[in-house]
Order: sequence, then structure tokens, then C-alpha cells
Amino acid sequence: MDFLKVLDETAERVKNTVKPLLKSPIAGKTYGIGAGGDAKKHIDLEAEKTIVSTLRRKGLEFTLISEETGIRRCGNRPSYYVTTDPIDGTTNLLRGIPFACSSIAISTTAHVGSVEAGVVVDLFHSVTYLAQRNRGAFRNSERIEPAQIDNLDDAVVGVDINSCDTSPRLAQLLGQIKHVRHLGANALELCYVADGTADGFIDVRGKLRTTDIAAAILIIEESNAIITDSRGVPLSRPLSPTTTIDFIAAGNRPLHQKILTALGTDQTHVDSH
Amino acid sequence: MDFLKVLDETAERVKNTVKPLLKSPIAGKTYGIGAGGDAKKHIDLEAEKTIVSTLRRKGLEFTLISEETGIRRCGNRPSYYVTTDPIDGTTNLLRGIPFACSSIAISTTAHVGSVEAGVVVDLFHSVTYLAQRNRGAFRNSERIEPAQIDNLDDAVVGVDINSCDTSPRLAQLLGQIKHVRHLGANALELCYVADGTADGFIDVRGKLRTTDIAAAILIIEESNAIITDSRGVPLSRPLSPTTTIDFIAAGNRPLHQKILTALGTDQTHVDSH
Repeated sequence: MDFLKVLDETAERVKNTVKPLLKSPIAGKTYGIGAGGDAKKHIDLEAEKTIVSTLRRKGLEFTLISEETGIRRCGNRPSYYVTTDPIDGTTNLLRGIPFACSSIAISTTAHVGSVEAGVVVDLFHSVTYLAQRNRGAFRNSERIEPAQIDNLDDAVVGVDINSCDTSPRLAQLLGQIKHVRHLGANALELCYVADGTADGFIDVRGKLRTTDIAAAILIIEESNAIITDSRGVPLSRPLSPTTTIDFIAAGNRPLHQKILTALGTDQTHVDSH
Repeated sequence: MDFLKVLDETAERVKNTVKPLLKSPIAGKTYGIGAGGDAKKHIDLEAEKTIVSTLRRKGLEFTLISEETGIRRCGNRPSYYVTTDPIDGTTNLLRGIPFACSSIAISTTAHVGSVEAGVVVDLFHSVTYLAQRNRGAFRNSERIEPAQIDNLDDAVVGVDINSCDTSPRLAQLLGQIKHVRHLGANALELCYVADGTADGFIDVRGKLRTTDIAAAILIIEESNAIITDSRGVPLSRPLSPTTTIDFIAAGNRPLHQKILTALGTDQTHVDSH
């Protein structure tokens, strides 16, 4: 199966599902709490339905790992795992802030390290990020690579600070970054690091779920950008809507190192990556 | 002179100037330091030229107060002041983060309180905010009003944290906001409060210049959203590329009050507004 083609088409269908719904008053209607702990909204559930039905129609049988409806079997003999946050940035989407995406990853086990292919599609602009393991990362079919800016003075760095007890070490980092951003859709902000639109993106809150960024992690890695956990250790987490993850992503190793240093992180693990 | 029509047309011309330049390698070329203290870039200067030439062609004679080239006379007998940040969010624009705007305000004196009309145009999306004093605020010709969300749990609040020594009071506020954003173009983020796309936007760094938000302040006020300085006092600042301003903007008074309280700000001034 050509995973990139299947994911590209699925992503396109999610865009087509979401667009007309945005004008409907029921888009934001809530249906209890989703598997990831946030309220399930009508628009999230419709996006998930589109993802499942498109992948099933393509003949994929899989175990779904979703931010919304949790873990369930889709098909008789699931041979893959499909990890998705059907809409990352639902708040932005419903309010009209033009940053939101859909994220879908296909893996052989329920672990970030076994993701084979992933897509992150920008729901407001005509931009789709795709990656397949050992075959590179792409933005609208063009191969991408990260930026080479390697100092905090010039770098554009995203920092997730939602509901965040700003620790002294995070405050110290914020004080050193001239261009801080927080756009509100973490998977898309990671893709910005992969293609050099931004230089770094960090989330050290320990609140994000692995379902949010399963696809984006592969896109980062295949672009040759750097991603580790907040201590500088390679990411190694199960894929599940309740497993949290923290990370530091940067376009290159010197910038990654400077972010770690500014956070006062022990460096011993970094070189083993 | 129909200020709204003139500003709308000027904004459209700025968009047309900027768009083709984005694909040119000289867009980001720098020409020394601008009046506001940042590097003047080719694309900033081209946008300013378009603003000045369009307004002059419409017959306006004015004193220009610009983030880029400073204060200078445009026309023989200037009867107005035109305060502009030709491009707010130049870093985003040049990197491809789809969030930047152009801001133009017309006033009778060089003071925020005397701005008669203003425009903020989104350079990536088909959205233009306009306001005229005592005649309301508009988004693409439709009258706008702020959102009524009045608590920090549900509110989407922008916070400018660039190069910011995160004070304990700011850290305390950040810890209480569930949906923090920092998109990187302050004038546009203020307009998001005016039309209810977001609920609040604050910049308490004391680093922003009045030229950045002269137009947006009027748009906020005419939408009936609330804006004060960081102590809760009505804004009262000269318009100049070197005068700084801090502010707290919110869609409604209860939310504004909650932000002030979370910042630990003395409340005595607020009720006098």
C-alpha cells in the first residue's frame, strides 16, 4: 500500500469535511469528554469519522488510537495502528484563528518509534506535510529540510505555555528568545520546524499526549531536524490517548543544545542520540 | 474626505505590494536600523512607500510617524498625522508564518487619543479591520463586537512574551490561562479581541511602540472592547516611533478585571475609566 498517497487523500477529505461545518452552529457542540481528556466536539468526531471511513475504504485494517474516541479495532484483522488527533487546534478552528491541522500516523506497533508514515494537514491553508520512514519528509510534494539558524537571538521558537506553571528555568529560556510564538496547534508548529518556517518548538509541560504529535515526530525526524524529550533523551513513548510527552525540537543540533542549556538541562544524554 | 474608503484602498495596495515581493530574495534585505529600533527591511520600506504615495495621491497632506523612517512631512501643509507600522509581523511574513498585517492610523494630533480612523489589514487572509471614531469598527464592512467570555478558563488570551523577563506576576497569569496564544503581530491580535476571535491580548513588557497599535487601539475602542495600560489606567500616550506602550485588552470588563487581578495590579484606577 502506498501510505503517502493514502494519507494525502485522507487528509484532503478531512479538509472537505471540516470546511462546510465551520459555518454551522453545531460544529462546537460537545459530547462528553474524549479519550485524551478534552471535550469531544462535533467537528472533532466528524473529522475522525472521515479518517476511519477513508482508510477503511482503502483496504486498511487497523487499531485506531484516537484523541477523541480512544482505542478500538477498525476491520477484522488489524495489521497496523492508526494514531490520530483528528483536529489539533480545535479552539483556534472554532474561533477563527487560522492555525489548525489534522494529524494521522500509521505504525506497526503502538509506539512512537514504529511510525511508518504520517500526515499533518493545515486546515486553513493549502499546505500538507507528509513523511515516510527512510524516504524523507515533504511539504506539498517537495522535499523539506530545517533552517540553519543556530542562536536564540535570531531564532523563531514556539513554546507551549498553556495552563503552564512557568518554572524559573522556562522563564529563563523565554527571556533569551527574541521571537517566541505560540500558535495553538502543536503538530503544525512541529512541521514548521521540519521545513524551516520556524527554528524550534518546545513543550516541556508534560501535558501533551502522544496522539497529538505521532505524525509530526516522524516528519521532524525525516526532515533531519532534531527532537528529544526535555532532558535531551531520544523520544521513546507508547502511542495512547492518555500517554503524555514533552519535547524539544530544533532545526539543528547547535540550536537544540542552546535551548537545553538555557533550560538548565543536564547534557549527558544528548550525545548518545 | 472619506477616511474609511481611503484607508481601505491603501491597505489593499499594501497587500498588492507585499505579495509578489515575498517570492523575491531581496524582501528581507536590511538597510540599517529603523526609527523604532528594529532593522529596516526592503519589504517594510516598500510597504511604507505604497502607504505614503497612495495617501498623497488621494490628496492627504500629513506628518508621517513611521516605525521605519521616523517622523517627516508628506505634503506642503500637513493637516493630519499618519501613524504606521507598514508591516507588523515582518519576521512571520519573511519566514512564511501566515500571520502579519499592515497598520495605518489617521489622527489630528500626535496622540493615541486623537486617532480619527484606522485600518489593520491581514496580509495573508482576506480580512481588513477598519474603524472611524464614533462610527464603529468593521471587519470586511461588517460591524464587529467583542466576545462575552469572561473567565480565564475558557478565554483565548494572547500574551506577548518576546524577549520578556517573565516576572512572577506574569508567570502567575500564564498559569491561569488555558488558551494562551502568541501569534507575532500585535495589531492583528488586538483586532482579534475587537471581533471576538480572541478574548484578550496583553503586552506588559513596556517594549512595544505606539506606532504598532495606533490603529488597533481605535478598532478596539470602537468595537466596545476594553483597553487600558497594565495598571488599568486609560491609555494616554504620544504617537512616536520611540514611545513605548503597555496594555491589557479584553472583550469585556469582567475578563479585563480578572486579568488585572491575576497580574496583581492595583485596582484603584480601573473604575475611573
